[in-house]
Amino acid sequence: ALRELLHDYHFADIAEILEELDSDEATYLIKLLESEITSEALMEVDDDVREKILDRLSPQEIADELQEMDTDDAADVVAELDDERQQEVIGQLEDETLAADIVELLKYDEDTAGALMAKELVRVKETWTVAGCVREMRRQAKNVTRVHSIYVTNKQGQLTGRLSLKDLLTASEGAHISDIFIPKVDYVTVHTDNEEVARIMQKYDLEAIPVVDENGILVGRITIDDIVDFIKEEADKDYQMAAGISQDVEADDSVWQLTRARLPWLVLGLFGGLGSVYIMQGFEEALEKFPILFFFTPLIAAMAGNVGVQSSAIIVQGLANDNVKGSLFNRLLKEVGLALINGTALGLLVILFGFIVGQEQLVSVTIAVSMLSVIIVAALVGTFVPIILDKRGIDPAIATGPFITTSNDIFGIFLFFYISKIVLGF
Amino acid sequence: ALRELLHDYHFADIAEILEELDSDEATYLIKLLESEITSEALMEVDDDVREKILDRLSPQEIADELQEMDTDDAADVVAELDDERQQEVIGQLEDETLAADIVELLKYDEDTAGALMAKELVRVKETWTVAGCVREMRRQAKNVTRVHSIYVTNKQGQLTGRLSLKDLLTASEGAHISDIFIPKVDYVTVHTDNEEVARIMQKYDLEAIPVVDENGILVGRITIDDIVDFIKEEADKDYQMAAGISQDVEADDSVWQLTRARLPWLVLGLFGGLGSVYIMQGFEEALEKFPILFFFTPLIAAMAGNVGVQSSAIIVQGLANDNVKGSLFNRLLKEVGLALINGTALGLLVILFGFIVGQEQLVSVTIAVSMLSVIIVAALVGTFVPIILDKRGIDPAIATGPFITTSNDIFGIFLFFYISKIVLGF
Ligand SMILES: [Mg+2]
Ligand SMILES: [Mg+2]
Ligand SMILES: [Mg+2]
Ligand SMILES: [Mg+2]
Ligand SMILES: [Mg+2]
Ligand SMILES: [Mg+2]
Ligand SMILES: [Mg+2]
Ligand SMILES: [Mg+2]
Ligand SMILES: [Mg+2]
Ligand SMILES: [Mg+2]
Ligand SMILES: [Mg+2]
Ligand SMILES: [Mg+2]
Ligand SMILES: [Mg+2]
Repeated sequence: ALRELLHDYHFADIAEILEELDSDEATYLIKLLESEITSEALMEVDDDVREKILDRLSPQEIADELQEMDTDDAADVVAELDDERQQEVIGQLEDETLAADIVELLKYDEDTAGALMAKELVRVKETWTVAGCVREMRRQAKNVTRVHSIYVTNKQGQLTGRLSLKDLLTASEGAHISDIFIPKVDYVTVHTDNEEVARIMQKYDLEAIPVVDENGILVGRITIDDIVDFIKEEADKDYQMAAGISQDVEADDSVWQLTRARLPWLVLGLFGGLGSVYIMQGFEEALEKFPILFFFTPLIAAMAGNVGVQSSAIIVQGLANDNVKGSLFNRLLKEVGLALINGTALGLLVILFGFIVGQEQLVSVTIAVSMLSVIIVAALVGTFVPIILDKRGIDPAIATGPFITTSNDIFGIFLFFYISKIVLGF
Repeated sequence: ALRELLHDYHFADIAEILEELDSDEATYLIKLLESEITSEALMEVDDDVREKILDRLSPQEIADELQEMDTDDAADVVAELDDERQQEVIGQLEDETLAADIVELLKYDEDTAGALMAKELVRVKETWTVAGCVREMRRQAKNVTRVHSIYVTNKQGQLTGRLSLKDLLTASEGAHISDIFIPKVDYVTVHTDNEEVARIMQKYDLEAIPVVDENGILVGRITIDDIVDFIKEEADKDYQMAAGISQDVEADDSVWQLTRARLPWLVLGLFGGLGSVYIMQGFEEALEKFPILFFFTPLIAAMAGNVGVQSSAIIVQGLANDNVKGSLFNRLLKEVGLALINGTALGLLVILFGFIVGQEQLVSVTIAVSMLSVIIVAALVGTFVPIILDKRGIDPAIATGPFITTSNDIFGIFLFFYISKIVLGF
């Protein structure tokens, strides 16, 4: 009865049900329902849920699920298993083409088009006629959930163009593919970076893109649904990184998972804070004559942090969207200019505040000037740390949030007291 | 010559060229090239570039461009004009259907499916035969760049199902649509929220989704390329908001635009900092006996800020992805538990630090305990402010970054001194 009840559910809805169940119940459901339904649901659930379910399935049962998946998904599942189980599961696959496809897909680097692509696609040769093509297509299309484009290759299997279903519908039966196909087609290679694939597909509004190997041979295609997932995951990851949350956690994860993702960044912030304590102890002499300076440290830290986060966020986003152009020197000029404008405006507010509460004018001006310097330095750190990381091939997204606020807190507090000491002379 | 050179360019590439040119040159290029090419490029360029170009075009010239656009894009362009010019441009349109479509699309609320959809789609009636359907489709498909699905309606025009091109290719000519169509189809209404549309299309891996009105009449469809743009824009916006950057700016915008987007948040932070100054003046008596407390304020502010940002980021993301479930009380328990674990670990580090530098033990413990309280409060503020905003229909994303750090700085500093005062008694 349960089986019949769930039969009409969409796999994405079954995935949601699986996530609500405990691991044993979820595993029971996977075994109960036909793999045709469960395989896609299994792909859709969260990594940690899937891991627990896979742990409870035999190699044969996993192989049954793989048999029903698209090759890209099957390869992703196999990649999640440890080496030994990978071999066992692949050994259990009845479909040898699938086994070979999975082995091929596993060899590509995680961040590349090769790891995103599926082997399912509809391909026709230039030399075929439209009638032959439709016949052949009907055969191939069985394995392809959705036909986006029909890819055209030469005899060697090299990608030479594409054909839309619409064109095929409107062409006469006897025409040759070589007469009607579009010889211009966007493609990527197996080594193209993930983010580049997403950028190309977004830019040209593609629903699928063919993937070729080093020799131009058509080896797979990437579909937009996987790119949508990729874009969303990357955005979520960067957002979390900027907030000081590592790993991929969700609001509903366990306290323990959340602690592992959050505590390291807090410890970093704590060390930064202790650094500030140490710096202020070095300026202890000021306590007697200018205690007010110590009241301004949270303000200085806040300004250094906020400016740094703003600058780094814009640069990290610019780098991700590939629109940070122009020379480093121009960028430096611009950041300094921006910091000068913002810092001056804020400095005037500080002086105004000092005037209202009847603070000594020299002290107000000193605070304003050192705050301005802190803002300039914070903007430069926020801008150039991500750029340098990016140049060295490190993901600049780590240089946002706690990383920038912590280092800017330390720099800022030091600079603030150092300049105050020079001007006020304590 | 220029005209021929650019003829083979993809519109997205022409858009990039337009962005590099100054407004007059860009306008010249738009006028020079056929609207068939420029209209799509015009849609692809950044809002502010388009605004400048549109300013330089006559109503007739704008109408020529609209004539070549998809209805969704045409409506978006018209929406960017002021009321008077909207009327002029619509008046210049030769194609009356297009004019009517634009007027219809303009009436939908910005955040709804109605504003995302296009009028172009292929529709067939249940009663038609496959042969008639293919004939009719060829006619309709001229206006539709890509046929994703063929939508099936009853005589009243109500959406009843869909048909894939693949099914049509494989069906016999004489069959009736009512025999072969799939009576189950995902759809949204014109009033469905944008984010909900994106969620549905991502969840069910759709490339297009039909839109119906209040009476179930098929009125448009939304394609995945526009959803990809929407998801990316929303993610960029939320990321900027969390970093304290309002409006939609890029690394390459002018210093003035960047200042307008950044300064307001810095001013907010400044007021927060001045608030802290005021609070500390209230605890001035501590300066003599416990000056060390004042050295710890940046640390307290950093912890309050970081914890608050982490908590709010997880909640904001959870709300956006619709996976914040369960009761508020359970969430409260969880947040407090998490804060207790993190706060205790960090507190022990503070005590260890005090031990190493030979600080009075009571002071170390006091600092650790008040820091723990600050962390708990910060976590609660970070969690519940977004939830409350969301419940009131305000975008919770504004309650991240500077907003949370500023309020947590003030709460944190006050709580820290207040608890220290009780324990140490100054
Ligand atoms: Mg099963
Ligand atoms: Mg993969
Ligand atoms: Mg696009
Ligand atoms: Mg587009
Ligand atoms: Mg896939
Ligand atoms: Mg999928
Ligand atoms: Mg990234
Ligand atoms: Mg801070
Ligand atoms: Mg033109
Ligand atoms: Mg619109
Ligand atoms: Mg999906
Ligand atoms: Mg569109
Ligand atoms: Mg949002």
